[in-house]
Amino acid sequence: MTKEGRKARHVGILISGRGSNMLALADAVRDGRVPGAEVAVVLSDKPQAAGLARARERGIETLVVERTGRTREEHEREIVSALRERGVEFVCLAGYMRLLSPCFVGEFRGRVLNIHPSLLPAFPGLDAQRQAIEHGVKFSGCTVHFVDETLDGGPIITQRVVAVLDSDTEETLAARILAEEHRAYAEALALVCGGGYEVVGRRVLRKK
Amino acid sequence: MTKEGRKARHVGILISGRGSNMLALADAVRDGRVPGAEVAVVLSDKPQAAGLARARERGIETLVVERTGRTREEHEREIVSALRERGVEFVCLAGYMRLLSPCFVGEFRGRVLNIHPSLLPAFPGLDAQRQAIEHGVKFSGCTVHFVDETLDGGPIITQRVVAVLDSDTEETLAARILAEEHRAYAEALALVCGGGYEVVGRRVLRKK
Repeated sequence: MTKEGRKARHVGILISGRGSNMLALADAVRDGRVPGAEVAVVLSDKPQAAGLARARERGIETLVVERTGRTREEHEREIVSALRERGVEFVCLAGYMRLLSPCFVGEFRGRVLNIHPSLLPAFPGLDAQRQAIEHGVKFSGCTVHFVDETLDGGPIITQRVVAVLDSDTEETLAARILAEEHRAYAEALALVCGGGYEVVGRRVLRKK
Repeated sequence: MTKEGRKARHVGILISGRGSNMLALADAVRDGRVPGAEVAVVLSDKPQAAGLARARERGIETLVVERTGRTREEHEREIVSALRERGVEFVCLAGYMRLLSPCFVGEFRGRVLNIHPSLLPAFPGLDAQRQAIEHGVKFSGCTVHFVDETLDGGPIITQRVVAVLDSDTEETLAARILAEEHRAYAEALALVCGGGYEVVGRRVLRKK
């Protein structure tokens, strides 16, 4: 239950590693910056993901669902079941290193969020920060978007801009973008959980 | 001659229409915001281009070189000759509606600048502002880049960012981006004329 006495909307977060965006989301929820939301479970496909212990320290249930020896569909079906059992309405990907199948996306249509370290549609895919440096752009940033069947191509919920400096390396740029990712993801989840938006074509607009 | 007594570096500006960026560049040069530069000629491939009269009002030589009945190469060769006769070192495209051939680019390698109304590499080609609106990005902007053989793909000299608002239409966004284009183009030409940069890979870096 939320402070306002309404039933909290359950969020599941999928990670594969340290889950820095997961921690930022968990802290934002704890601090009241995502009103009406509760992180119900943090789920990793890798048992060694460092984020699992950090989530448990915060009193959040964690779960490991490994792929080992199974088809992608079987693996995803188990994840979907685990999320459904916990009443998860919104799924946030936070460094989850697998592409989701159309089946998964279909189960949570319009309710799976991902964050990407570039101003999409520029630099989709891996190593976005390196792509930005090598392309020579003067600004990059991050994008929170709904996940659909395309690679980093779903409707954009929010973006934040970061200047690329002449002195930047992939690492220094990634660090500055990451700080903005933490803010952007909490903002986006708050908007989506609050329901104060509509999707018109590809545009995610705030309801008036 | 410049105020400092050095020989001015001659800039040629190519237009096809009203040439709003041409006027912004001409005014920036006149106001001393592009030190050491002089606009030697404004050249249009269309005799009816509204920018021609505006350039003449400012005391700038204008020239019309029509394509009519000739190959692209013949047309470009005449433009190159006209620019060379006037000692033009840098060529700025300002709403010039033709693609330049590799020949032209080769004649002025690394000295042809273009401006594009998006944060490249996002939304190259026509109707960049409409593309941005339809894609649902939260930020767009403009890019001044060196022209090479690719479409809007040469090394990026400068970019400026503009927020895309929920209430934006293609027209309102284009107007806000255009104001930034005028600033960006003058900044970029000043950097390039001053020589205070180096191109490393695709990156345009300021010399230390």
